[in-house]
Amino acid sequence: MEFTAAQIAAFVDGAIDGDGNVRITNFAKIEEAGPSDLTFLANPKYTHFIYSTDAGAVLVHADFEAEHPVKATLIRVADPYSTLSQLMTVAAQAMAPQPVGVEEPSHVAEGVEVPEDAYIGAFAYVGKGVTLGKGVKIYPQAYVGDGCVIGDGTVLYPGVKVYHGCRIGARCVLHSGAVIGADGFGFAPDAEGRYHKIPQLGIVVIEDDVEVGANTTIDRATMGQTVVGRGTKLDNLIQLAHNTTVGEDTVMAAQVGVAGSTQIGSHCMVGGQVGFAGHIHVGDNVQIGAQSGIAHGVESNQRIMGSPAVDARQFMRQAALINRLPQFADQLRELSRSAKSDKTN
Amino acid sequence: MEFTAAQIAAFVDGAIDGDGNVRITNFAKIEEAGPSDLTFLANPKYTHFIYSTDAGAVLVHADFEAEHPVKATLIRVADPYSTLSQLMTVAAQAMAPQPVGVEEPSHVAEGVEVPEDAYIGAFAYVGKGVTLGKGVKIYPQAYVGDGCVIGDGTVLYPGVKVYHGCRIGARCVLHSGAVIGADGFGFAPDAEGRYHKIPQLGIVVIEDDVEVGANTTIDRATMGQTVVGRGTKLDNLIQLAHNTTVGEDTVMAAQVGVAGSTQIGSHCMVGGQVGFAGHIHVGDNVQIGAQSGIAHGVESNQRIMGSPAVDARQFMRQAALINRLPQFADQLRELSRSAKSDKTN
Amino acid sequence: MEFTAAQIAAFVDGAIDGDGNVRITNFAKIEEAGPSDLTFLANPKYTHFIYSTDAGAVLVHADFEAEHPVKATLIRVADPYSTLSQLMTVAAQAMAPQPVGVEEPSHVAEGVEVPEDAYIGAFAYVGKGVTLGKGVKIYPQAYVGDGCVIGDGTVLYPGVKVYHGCRIGARCVLHSGAVIGADGFGFAPDAEGRYHKIPQLGIVVIEDDVEVGANTTIDRATMGQTVVGRGTKLDNLIQLAHNTTVGEDTVMAAQVGVAGSTQIGSHCMVGGQVGFAGHIHVGDNVQIGAQSGIAHGVESNQRIMGSPAVDARQFMRQAALINRLPQFADQLRELSRSAKSDKTN
Repeated sequence: MEFTAAQIAAFVDGAIDGDGNVRITNFAKIEEAGPSDLTFLANPKYTHFIYSTDAGAVLVHADFEAEHPVKATLIRVADPYSTLSQLMTVAAQAMAPQPVGVEEPSHVAEGVEVPEDAYIGAFAYVGKGVTLGKGVKIYPQAYVGDGCVIGDGTVLYPGVKVYHGCRIGARCVLHSGAVIGADGFGFAPDAEGRYHKIPQLGIVVIEDDVEVGANTTIDRATMGQTVVGRGTKLDNLIQLAHNTTVGEDTVMAAQVGVAGSTQIGSHCMVGGQVGFAGHIHVGDNVQIGAQSGIAHGVESNQRIMGSPAVDARQFMRQAALINRLPQFADQLRELSRSAKSDKTN
Repeated sequence: MEFTAAQIAAFVDGAIDGDGNVRITNFAKIEEAGPSDLTFLANPKYTHFIYSTDAGAVLVHADFEAEHPVKATLIRVADPYSTLSQLMTVAAQAMAPQPVGVEEPSHVAEGVEVPEDAYIGAFAYVGKGVTLGKGVKIYPQAYVGDGCVIGDGTVLYPGVKVYHGCRIGARCVLHSGAVIGADGFGFAPDAEGRYHKIPQLGIVVIEDDVEVGANTTIDRATMGQTVVGRGTKLDNLIQLAHNTTVGEDTVMAAQVGVAGSTQIGSHCMVGGQVGFAGHIHVGDNVQIGAQSGIAHGVESNQRIMGSPAVDARQFMRQAALINRLPQFADQLRELSRSAKSDKTN
Repeated sequence: MEFTAAQIAAFVDGAIDGDGNVRITNFAKIEEAGPSDLTFLANPKYTHFIYSTDAGAVLVHADFEAEHPVKATLIRVADPYSTLSQLMTVAAQAMAPQPVGVEEPSHVAEGVEVPEDAYIGAFAYVGKGVTLGKGVKIYPQAYVGDGCVIGDGTVLYPGVKVYHGCRIGARCVLHSGAVIGADGFGFAPDAEGRYHKIPQLGIVVIEDDVEVGANTTIDRATMGQTVVGRGTKLDNLIQLAHNTTVGEDTVMAAQVGVAGSTQIGSHCMVGGQVGFAGHIHVGDNVQIGAQSGIAHGVESNQRIMGSPAVDARQFMRQAALINRLPQFADQLRELSRSAKSDKTN
């Protein structure tokens, strides 16, 4: 692709400030950009880079005021980050050829209908009674077990595994190595402490517009459903145990683990490596700091962190006080000594 | 399937309390069950649901005493959870068609004998000199390296990878994405700090009746064996490093990590996201709370938690005291002030 | 293989102390070794085993002084561990047959050149415009997306997935289930809190001599590159988010997570389950204890641990003081009481 800054400004309904004839061929981060790159400034922490960037053009807030000279052409818009994202989406569609058709050898069970605009990659496996939506892309080496339903426009990247009977909504993206519908971890010990498997007869339901990261695992329910709500985004290497439910538009960073039957609400933000105990209920709009341990239910609209997790401000105070423990120990020793000497006196 | 409550009671040697003619077609959790579902009550926390459940029938303890009217038919048994599990096992076998035979294309090296009742899925790879037990199921896209031994009745779900020379016992279940026998993480630095690979010449031995969760990784030994003992159950995304050994009937929740050469005993219960240092020894019957960090050896029969882990009661006390730190700080300030004013006086 | 202890000593330029005619056929750990095994003693913690080992021969430091009689033949060398490693490398090459050629069915896109000494396993997928170096080994069920470059001698074990456009250096080893180049976790919320995908247009660059553990995930950059530097070794189940960079000769233990745009230096050692916040800078030669949480940038040459991480000695002191909290609480109570009684008096 090649466009002038002025053409881009027109496309995104922005205002040019500088040379509109600059030619743009790619995107880059502000500190790495070169003369034919478009970049953006959204985070104030990065403002200083605008005075040194070699970028051809920079998307900035409409009301950005330069405090020093800026070499790059500015394109003023209401929301630089979302404008950039919009432009990248257009570019991505233009750049990435969308595969279509059935590559051989692949395995599509008899009777399964493959829509015309779908893609089935080589060595992909589609079991009996599977329903494939329009434009689905099943990349090479992916597996769709018997009776699964895959919604319109959903993408299963290479090697995704979906066990039998699970249902994936429309416009979902499942990254390589994601495993959907493996058995929940359910065993009953006998009198001698040997474990016997509890059959896991339920399924996983992933609603529309969900993204599932690479090597993330979502177990099937013991009975009923494990559910990931519409619009929720899961990063890599996350574990959702059997019978968990996650609401809508919740985001979880990598390596989060959620134990069995726990319910997490909508519009939550969960930091990396957080762990949730089983059988608890977490409300909506909850924000959880990285590495927290959530042992008990959480009301809506809380901001918590720590393991065990407490209110985020309390956690900060605790961390500060723990840093002062050596001082406290000294003070205590001093006080005890003078108290004794008082008594002796 | 469809049975009456009375038929089910007769099958499990239970006593009917209510209408034995209720027709049951499925299983469900007590809070979600409908009129044709069988459910169970084992955890006292869920007792209140029995007065509101729409379930057709409920498995309860033989001595359960209702404090309010119950609509559902009760089936009284000695152990409701294990009875349910038993019924689900029967149902699972009836419901899930067991695949048999060899799907093409698959790769079975020359000379490897495939038992008549085995299943080799499409795009599965079975290397040279592999021994396959009776009734093994190697699902699509699974990989069994040269010289491996897979015991009778063991199931490798889609995409499982077993590197060369490893031995898996009988009746094991390995879920999708599990990687058995990748190289242990062993490197020796030279004088300039560059790392050189230590060849990993050992293997992984998984004994009978082990379950390995999705995307769990168990590395081969540097020399000798990494061992998972009979009956042990590993959840998803667990890491067992080279030369670790885990005893029998131990259960580990998801995302646990065990560093090299550490030995963990039998009948242990390990919570999610726990980390073990390398070269330590953990006894039998040890219970470890989620997210704990185990830096040192642990005697048998301990209950520990925290990072670094301490006795579980001590951890609880510490957590409570940490919550009281602001108050301690206030007290200290107050005492110091009055001590000073005493001296001034 | 079979060699005498004397032959081995000659090969590694070591000095024999004992019977040079002992026949050696394998390697073993000192506590497990038998009469035809070679073992080694490097860690002083294991010294006591040398007096009881059944090993045929033991590699020891040149200046090792036995305090009791030793049955095994000693081979004295400058660095027993690296000598062992060297011998194991020779043995590994002799023992492991290196596969060569193209197994069918596999998918190699038209126009891709497969070097003569390369291996393409069955069900492997190599996309359009891929460049394969000499002697590359693409094991069964691995996936190499369009336009990737794989350097000389690099090994992709079964089921590795490399998304389009990524570049892997020479002599790298990628273990099963590693996912290179999946989309970074980037979403922009709209006014209603719904998330919209930020296209991830960058790539992953893995430099020479890197090892990537099983089921580790390294996401492609939003724009530009996610980079893993020369000689760096990553254990299993690690997460490197988009636009992270890791320097040279850094080692990371299993289950580490690094959030987006964070830069980690060279020659660092990162313990298991450590988490790094996004957009921070960690210097060179930094050592980080297991399970630490790195919320802020770290200068070079630090040794840190804890969550939030502090200087390692400070962490130890804090942990000790937290253990003494019950005692502090008692002292405080006592002091407050006597302070009150002083006032009352």
